[in-house]
Amino acid sequence: MGDSRDPAGGPWVLGVDSGGSGVRVALAPAGPAGAAGGSPGPASAATPLAAASLAADDRPAVTGPRGIDAASLMERVHPLVERLTAAAGADRIAAACVGAAGMATLGDDLRDRLPDALAAAFGVRRLALAGDAVTAYAGALGLRPGVVVAAGTGMIALGASADGDGHEGAGAWRRADGWGHLLGDAGGGAWIGRAGLDAAMRAHDGRAGGSMALMAAARERFGPLDAMPAQLYPRPDRAAVLASFAPEVGRAAGDDPVAAGILRQAAAHILESAAAVRPGAGPVDVALAGGLFRMGEPLLGPLRAQAERLLPGAVLVPAAGGPLDGALLIARALRHGRLPLPADPRLLTLTDRPGP
Amino acid sequence: MGDSRDPAGGPWVLGVDSGGSGVRVALAPAGPAGAAGGSPGPASAATPLAAASLAADDRPAVTGPRGIDAASLMERVHPLVERLTAAAGADRIAAACVGAAGMATLGDDLRDRLPDALAAAFGVRRLALAGDAVTAYAGALGLRPGVVVAAGTGMIALGASADGDGHEGAGAWRRADGWGHLLGDAGGGAWIGRAGLDAAMRAHDGRAGGSMALMAAARERFGPLDAMPAQLYPRPDRAAVLASFAPEVGRAAGDDPVAAGILRQAAAHILESAAAVRPGAGPVDVALAGGLFRMGEPLLGPLRAQAERLLPGAVLVPAAGGPLDGALLIARALRHGRLPLPADPRLLTLTDRPGP
Repeated sequence: MGDSRDPAGGPWVLGVDSGGSGVRVALAPAGPAGAAGGSPGPASAATPLAAASLAADDRPAVTGPRGIDAASLMERVHPLVERLTAAAGADRIAAACVGAAGMATLGDDLRDRLPDALAAAFGVRRLALAGDAVTAYAGALGLRPGVVVAAGTGMIALGASADGDGHEGAGAWRRADGWGHLLGDAGGGAWIGRAGLDAAMRAHDGRAGGSMALMAAARERFGPLDAMPAQLYPRPDRAAVLASFAPEVGRAAGDDPVAAGILRQAAAHILESAAAVRPGAGPVDVALAGGLFRMGEPLLGPLRAQAERLLPGAVLVPAAGGPLDGALLIARALRHGRLPLPADPRLLTLTDRPGP
Repeated sequence: MGDSRDPAGGPWVLGVDSGGSGVRVALAPAGPAGAAGGSPGPASAATPLAAASLAADDRPAVTGPRGIDAASLMERVHPLVERLTAAAGADRIAAACVGAAGMATLGDDLRDRLPDALAAAFGVRRLALAGDAVTAYAGALGLRPGVVVAAGTGMIALGASADGDGHEGAGAWRRADGWGHLLGDAGGGAWIGRAGLDAAMRAHDGRAGGSMALMAAARERFGPLDAMPAQLYPRPDRAAVLASFAPEVGRAAGDDPVAAGILRQAAAHILESAAAVRPGAGPVDVALAGGLFRMGEPLLGPLRAQAERLLPGAVLVPAAGGPLDGALLIARALRHGRLPLPADPRLLTLTDRPGP
C-alpha cells in the first residue's frame, strides 16, 4: 500500500509525552505498515525513537479548573513540532499520539479541544489521547496483550487483554496499585526506602527488626537520625526523599538479611500487582519499566525467584523503550489503520477525522 | 513532717500541660509526703486530679526561633493560675512541674527563663521542666521504674530505670519509636489505619492481601476509593486521616482475618518498642496510655497474647491517669524533696531555688 493510497494521508507521525517535568515530542516517518507493532516480541517497540527527531520543553502544561489545559499544552507543543517538521522537511502529520500524566482524571479539556487544535495546526487526522501509563505500556511491551509494571518512586501495574472479536479497540485495560506512598505503591521506590528507614530507626532504638547496615547508610545520607523527622516531614517531596534511600537498600542487600528481606517483600508486592492485571491465566509477558529496576540484581533476583509462585506462566522482560517510544508506536499503528490496544474512555481515546 | 518544717515552704503544688491544643493547669494541695509517688502500684497516680482545681486556655504557647517561647507560655499560664489560687485561697506555690510537647528539642527558652518567671510570679522554688512523654509516663505509671507506651495517632515507648545509687535523678530514660507516620510510630493509630487502607485498596484492585470488609468500610467512610489519593494527599493532617480509619480495623477484626492480622502485627510492634526500653530483664509494669487503647479487646487481646513471647516478665496495666496527673505527681514529689525519676538535660530538668 503506497502513501498515495494511505487514507491517513501522510508519511509522518508525531508522539507527545506530557508530564510533571515538561513536554517531549518526537517526529518520525510512519514507516511501513509492518513496523506498527502487534508483533509478538518487544523488539518492535525498541526502535521508534532511533528513527525519530526529538524536541523538549521543560515547562509542564498548566493544570487549571478543567484539568490539564489544552491551550497550554498546544503552546508548548506547537513550536517544538514546527521546528521538527521544518528540519525534517515534513509537510503533514498523518497521525499523532499524545500521552499525558493525569489524562485519566484531568484529561477532559484535552479530549474536548486537542483533536481540533492538532488538525488545524498540523493536519493531524487520526489522534490517540492516552494516559502516560498507556504510552509507558506500549513503549515497554509494544501493542500486544500483556502486563507492564512501572516502578520509580511509585508503582503501578497495567494489563491489556485482546479478548473480544479482534476489532480495533477491543479488550480492556486493568490497573492495580499506583495509589501513592500512603495508600499503596507497594514495592516501589518510596515503599522500599521507607521500609529501609524503618529498619534504620529500629536499629537506632534497639527495637526488633533493625538493621545496623541501614542505620549506618541512613546516617551517612541524612545525618543524625534523631533529626530525621524534622528533616523529612516539612518537605513537599516526602515520597521522593523516601525513594532516594531505595538504592541504599539495594546496596546493603548482599550482606544484610533485613535489607534482603525488604527487597524480597517488594518483589512479591510487584508480582502481586502484576498478577491482579494479567489478561487470563495463560502465558504472559510482564515488562519491567521504570527507574527502580536499574537497581539490578538485588531486586531482579527476588522477582525471578518468586515469579513462578506468584505469577505462574509469566516471562519477565525488560522494558523495550519509554513512554515517548510508546506514543510513536501508537501513532504509527493509527496511521496504518489499526491499533490493537483496548480503547477506554479515560485511558485511551481515538479520534478519526475525515480527509479534506 | 509538718508544713512548718517543709523546706519547700508551702502547701500547694502546680501542674502544667502545654501542647498543640492549648495549655492546661492544675492546682492541688501538696498533700502528705506519702502521696508523692514511689509506691509500687499505679494507684498512687490515679488520684491527683481528683483533688485539684483545673483551668485551661485553648491557645497553644507560641513557638519562635528559640523554640517554645517562655513569655508566651507565661502569658497563658499566669491568669489561669491567678484564678485558681484566688479561688482556692492558696497563698504560695511550693513546687511546680511544667510538661510541654517539644520540651526535648524546643525547650531551651523554657529552661532559660521559666524558673525566674514562675518564682517571680508565684514564689515557685522547686520546678521540674518535663517533656510531655515524661508527664505522660508519670501520669500513667507513677514515679517508679517501668515502661509506658503512649499510642494515639503516633506511638512512642518510654522506659525509666532506677539503677544507680538511689539519689534524686539517678537512673535513665530510654525512648523507642515516636518517629512519625513515615519513619515509624509502628503499631500506632496512623500505622493501623494505613495498613487497613492498604488492605482496602488491595481488595479494590484484586491484589493479594486485600480485605473486602475493610474495602466496604473505607468506601463507607471516604467514598469511592479511586478518589482516595486526591482526597488524602493534599491534606496537612494526613496522619490523622489515616488514624481515623484505625477504629474500623478494630471493628472488622472479629470477622476479618486481614484486619485481625493488622492488629496482631500492631500489637507486636508496640511490644517490641516496650521491650527496647525496659529497665533490665526482670519483672516490669508496662502501662498502656493514650486513646488508641480505647479500641479495647481487638488490640488488647493480641497485646496480651504476644506479651509473654515479646516482653517476658511484663505485666500490662492500664494508664492510671494523663499528663496533667503526671505533672501534679512530679510537683508533689518535688515539694516533698524527692523525685525518684531520672533527671535528663532534655526530658526532665530540675531547679531548686534557695528560700527567701
